[in-house]
Amino acid sequence: MTLDRTDPEGAIAEAARTYSNWGRWGEDDVLGTLNFLDEAKRRQGAALIRRGVSFSLSQSFDMNGPQKGWRRRTNPVHTMLDTGTDAVVTGQGFPHGLGGADDVIAMPLQCSTQWDGLGHIFDHGKAWNGRPAERVVTSEGDLVTGIEHMAPHVAGRGVLLDVGRVIGEDGELPDGFAVTAEHLTATAEAHGVSVGRGDIVLVRTGQLTRVRRDGWGEYAGGPAPGLSFTAAGWLHGTEIAAIATDTWGFEVRPNEFEHAFQPLHQVAIPNMGLLIGEMWDPDALAEDCAADGVHDFWLTAAPLPITGAVGSPVNPIAVK
Amino acid sequence: MTLDRTDPEGAIAEAARTYSNWGRWGEDDVLGTLNFLDEAKRRQGAALIRRGVSFSLSQSFDMNGPQKGWRRRTNPVHTMLDTGTDAVVTGQGFPHGLGGADDVIAMPLQCSTQWDGLGHIFDHGKAWNGRPAERVVTSEGDLVTGIEHMAPHVAGRGVLLDVGRVIGEDGELPDGFAVTAEHLTATAEAHGVSVGRGDIVLVRTGQLTRVRRDGWGEYAGGPAPGLSFTAAGWLHGTEIAAIATDTWGFEVRPNEFEHAFQPLHQVAIPNMGLLIGEMWDPDALAEDCAADGVHDFWLTAAPLPITGAVGSPVNPIAVK
Amino acid sequence: MTLDRTDPEGAIAEAARTYSNWGRWGEDDVLGTLNFLDEAKRRQGAALIRRGVSFSLSQSFDMNGPQKGWRRRTNPVHTMLDTGTDAVVTGQGFPHGLGGADDVIAMPLQCSTQWDGLGHIFDHGKAWNGRPAERVVTSEGDLVTGIEHMAPHVAGRGVLLDVGRVIGEDGELPDGFAVTAEHLTATAEAHGVSVGRGDIVLVRTGQLTRVRRDGWGEYAGGPAPGLSFTAAGWLHGTEIAAIATDTWGFEVRPNEFEHAFQPLHQVAIPNMGLLIGEMWDPDALAEDCAADGVHDFWLTAAPLPITGAVGSPVNPIAVK
Amino acid sequence: MTLDRTDPEGAIAEAARTYSNWGRWGEDDVLGTLNFLDEAKRRQGAALIRRGVSFSLSQSFDMNGPQKGWRRRTNPVHTMLDTGTDAVVTGQGFPHGLGGADDVIAMPLQCSTQWDGLGHIFDHGKAWNGRPAERVVTSEGDLVTGIEHMAPHVAGRGVLLDVGRVIGEDGELPDGFAVTAEHLTATAEAHGVSVGRGDIVLVRTGQLTRVRRDGWGEYAGGPAPGLSFTAAGWLHGTEIAAIATDTWGFEVRPNEFEHAFQPLHQVAIPNMGLLIGEMWDPDALAEDCAADGVHDFWLTAAPLPITGAVGSPVNPIAVK
Repeated sequence: MTLDRTDPEGAIAEAARTYSNWGRWGEDDVLGTLNFLDEAKRRQGAALIRRGVSFSLSQSFDMNGPQKGWRRRTNPVHTMLDTGTDAVVTGQGFPHGLGGADDVIAMPLQCSTQWDGLGHIFDHGKAWNGRPAERVVTSEGDLVTGIEHMAPHVAGRGVLLDVGRVIGEDGELPDGFAVTAEHLTATAEAHGVSVGRGDIVLVRTGQLTRVRRDGWGEYAGGPAPGLSFTAAGWLHGTEIAAIATDTWGFEVRPNEFEHAFQPLHQVAIPNMGLLIGEMWDPDALAEDCAADGVHDFWLTAAPLPITGAVGSPVNPIAVK
Repeated sequence: MTLDRTDPEGAIAEAARTYSNWGRWGEDDVLGTLNFLDEAKRRQGAALIRRGVSFSLSQSFDMNGPQKGWRRRTNPVHTMLDTGTDAVVTGQGFPHGLGGADDVIAMPLQCSTQWDGLGHIFDHGKAWNGRPAERVVTSEGDLVTGIEHMAPHVAGRGVLLDVGRVIGEDGELPDGFAVTAEHLTATAEAHGVSVGRGDIVLVRTGQLTRVRRDGWGEYAGGPAPGLSFTAAGWLHGTEIAAIATDTWGFEVRPNEFEHAFQPLHQVAIPNMGLLIGEMWDPDALAEDCAADGVHDFWLTAAPLPITGAVGSPVNPIAVK
Repeated sequence: MTLDRTDPEGAIAEAARTYSNWGRWGEDDVLGTLNFLDEAKRRQGAALIRRGVSFSLSQSFDMNGPQKGWRRRTNPVHTMLDTGTDAVVTGQGFPHGLGGADDVIAMPLQCSTQWDGLGHIFDHGKAWNGRPAERVVTSEGDLVTGIEHMAPHVAGRGVLLDVGRVIGEDGELPDGFAVTAEHLTATAEAHGVSVGRGDIVLVRTGQLTRVRRDGWGEYAGGPAPGLSFTAAGWLHGTEIAAIATDTWGFEVRPNEFEHAFQPLHQVAIPNMGLLIGEMWDPDALAEDCAADGVHDFWLTAAPLPITGAVGSPVNPIAVK
Repeated sequence: MTLDRTDPEGAIAEAARTYSNWGRWGEDDVLGTLNFLDEAKRRQGAALIRRGVSFSLSQSFDMNGPQKGWRRRTNPVHTMLDTGTDAVVTGQGFPHGLGGADDVIAMPLQCSTQWDGLGHIFDHGKAWNGRPAERVVTSEGDLVTGIEHMAPHVAGRGVLLDVGRVIGEDGELPDGFAVTAEHLTATAEAHGVSVGRGDIVLVRTGQLTRVRRDGWGEYAGGPAPGLSFTAAGWLHGTEIAAIATDTWGFEVRPNEFEHAFQPLHQVAIPNMGLLIGEMWDPDALAEDCAADGVHDFWLTAAPLPITGAVGSPVNPIAVK
């Protein structure tokens, strides 16, 4: 696929048409490609738990995160309602020496490791499955495809594609590097792992490793390695259930068109119904996979069932 | 164990001494009984994935929850930063027909389905492992045992003890019913399931079923069935990794002493280092277990790694 | 004016037409009736400061307020970022014995004493001055008539109309009591006070006195005394700059039509451009006015300039 | 007063002793220097309303503010619960063509124009009036001197000291410029205005003018012009009720000692009981004062009565 850099509109329209899954799971569908993740796939994934070692693929949730306020996205603000200092000094009004601490959080649902819900992106006013965006997501939230519908489903076979290690130098792809279907295929081959229907794919670019070393910089919204717009066909053809990256925005940035913003999202979410994860932390898992040569595992990455949410923070757990 | 209802202070002191795990995993420990959940246990748990069917054990996170403001605990407030109505009407300033929705949440970490972190409760100014509470939890959060330390660990063998179904009438225990070690043992026997070191136990009382039918009432903080103070020995002796209930407060309420507040918490969290879950929703899983007679399963219930948090919302996923 | 209780649509349409101020202050106007409050009015108001005694007309902002979650309106959640207990116990990392406390708040802008901005209510898709509602208030806030535009203006002559004391029994109007133009006029006459162009009128019904004594009950959204729909002409003809009440919703509730919701708002805000205050606390001031017989005063009630807000908490200060 | 730059501890101790107001208004006092603002002062202030023109002295409250997350201080996050786009597209479930918009805010109380409450700063564990800090401010807020106590009081005579215009070049003092008592006195003399008991003083340094032109930079916490530590005697001796600046931190930064943090706060708030305002916007008012040569005015700057708050956002209104 050759991109005409001056015509994102045309390229998006063609890809949307070619890779659409509208109607594939009925007109009432609220799960998109998560439909590919079935019980057989879970049985296959379960067999991958061999050693019993588990990995969190989540970044931290705190004020030291990368958010700078763009689109009113802040880092999480975590405050205490009660503390140990209070317990010791005031007794807190509790009997028999009991003390307690309690806390609250205020955060954008996209502030750190997260899933994009199906209501997160629209294409020319259409949400997933062809629904009018304005009937799906109002100020009351996503009335149709809220992330709560995915609550029980996101557990199955995970596959790490460590493109940074296989294709990059010193384990990292540079910002602006577009990961194509060829890169993904070559990485899977190098790992000796297959990718197919119902899998949850985790692509490691190495950008997180880099910003962890060098400072956040423009991690939240700036240049990054990521999926090429041309990878849309691979995303569709593999019939994967979900895909996540270690970057803020999943796709390569700057985007590959002259005047564009997240064109692959526009194809993948509303047209393909693909579940996309961002800001995951694959590094500990990737170290382990590089060491033992096994790149598939059991993965649970259940969103919080926040009613009507168009995204959710998540702590994905891989077990090998 | 016979309780002197007039002496919670004495009973707590004795139980704390008898069932203390301080120092058991070294003086730097931040995991408590989660140390029991090892790789062998995960391998054992993985073998329980037979059919590939998954269940969310989480209640909803929205304004329709049970919180009424006690201790500044509100229901989650979820608001939108961008919507589909905006996308359609204003175009949102995006190119090529892209539209987007984004959202934020403000919530107490104990508002719905959740884990209590090790810094959640103190006993006479001591936090887990004997640390001074005032050195552990300040306004900056839990500086030592924050829930982020548990991020990769909570995945293993889960066991449902459906005490409501086995001991209760019509599947429910009445409010104020104290679940003793005998009830737990009898339920396990009725299920034909074992409970032991490293397991994550889920106790269903049926209260959630009841309030779902009858309205929240005083679910958040009022009378409830729950663990008897006398079950402390069972919690300790079984060497379980964690335990959760379908109630707001884990232990029976009113508590079993004349003037007391959550005395079992005071023993279990700071002294035993036990991970406690509350407000879980076991009902769909319990139906399935009653139907197929299998009460153990693979369970992943990873807290969000909110740095310094003394609790975390969680969407626990059981797979059979 | 006689109301046809079955035809709110017709009554609203007629009142909207009759009492419209669209275009009165130019097509770019963002202030509505606040335009009536001019420098001469401020000079008149200033002359009312005779004794130098000041009154806050604000209710508290805390978790003990009346909100119960309807329309996601909670009471304010105020939490601490640093405390005195921390300062004493940990030193907080500050040098030379300095200690500090800091705090945050999360609150609906309509949770307690507040102004309704001009973008708060629409009539058949039209916002103040005839603008399309969808061009005025999006998820980014009120892009045209945000409350910040009112920031410097709300200071002038205030007039208390203590309808509760003049018309009610024991100083209180019952819930459901509709305050008509006749009641307002009679009250002003009883007080010996005039009401006219540019004044800020405060109507005391006594409901707040009652719920303060008896408990909040349904104060936030339930039955209440308040302005009759038929008072629209008085609101328009007097050319007042603003009006506030001690009730949640300004107008009488239940509303005076069979199937209606806040019909007077629909006339007063988008059509008249009237600044409306709710949940004010007039009681201390009213005591003083009853004692000295002086019912007008200098009033400052400046909204916080929250960019794009459709309302604002306010602490109105009356000085006599 | 000559400062020993190496001994903040000693200088603070001496100033605290010399300028203490502990006990001056009784042991139960919760108002500090606001006690100086009496009815006579208000009558004096009212006489300054001559033209009837009003000025807001507040900066904006939005995501474009200067906060960068230091000490978990973010800019205000304002989100909508309902919008005009929704009203037009969905009808929102309201009858007779009514539409509505509603909003919420989450913000640190020190994020923009604000008052520091008396519980905001401690000196060696002592809060205002000599109270133990740990008994005053816990996680539940300021239990004694919460800002709600000041709700009705902050209205009186305001005086602008435009030190930037009088002492600075082009109307601005450079960052790091320490404003001494001599500068304040010289400025008052240049203006021909007196400063005395019960006044609310507004010091303009010009820094806000500069950052408004050049970008925020390190406005929130970085170098700034401001009050010299040596001005403590002036603050005490004048018996002013309150003082505010157009800077983030009131006092000069870097502070005048080698290793120090806000030493003047440590004297002024807990020892003197002085009400301090920060991040005010004096520029429109200062233009007017420069034009008409009148530097005193009626000022209302009432904090929101947030129960237990150690600070409050405020929209101060000056009227001349």
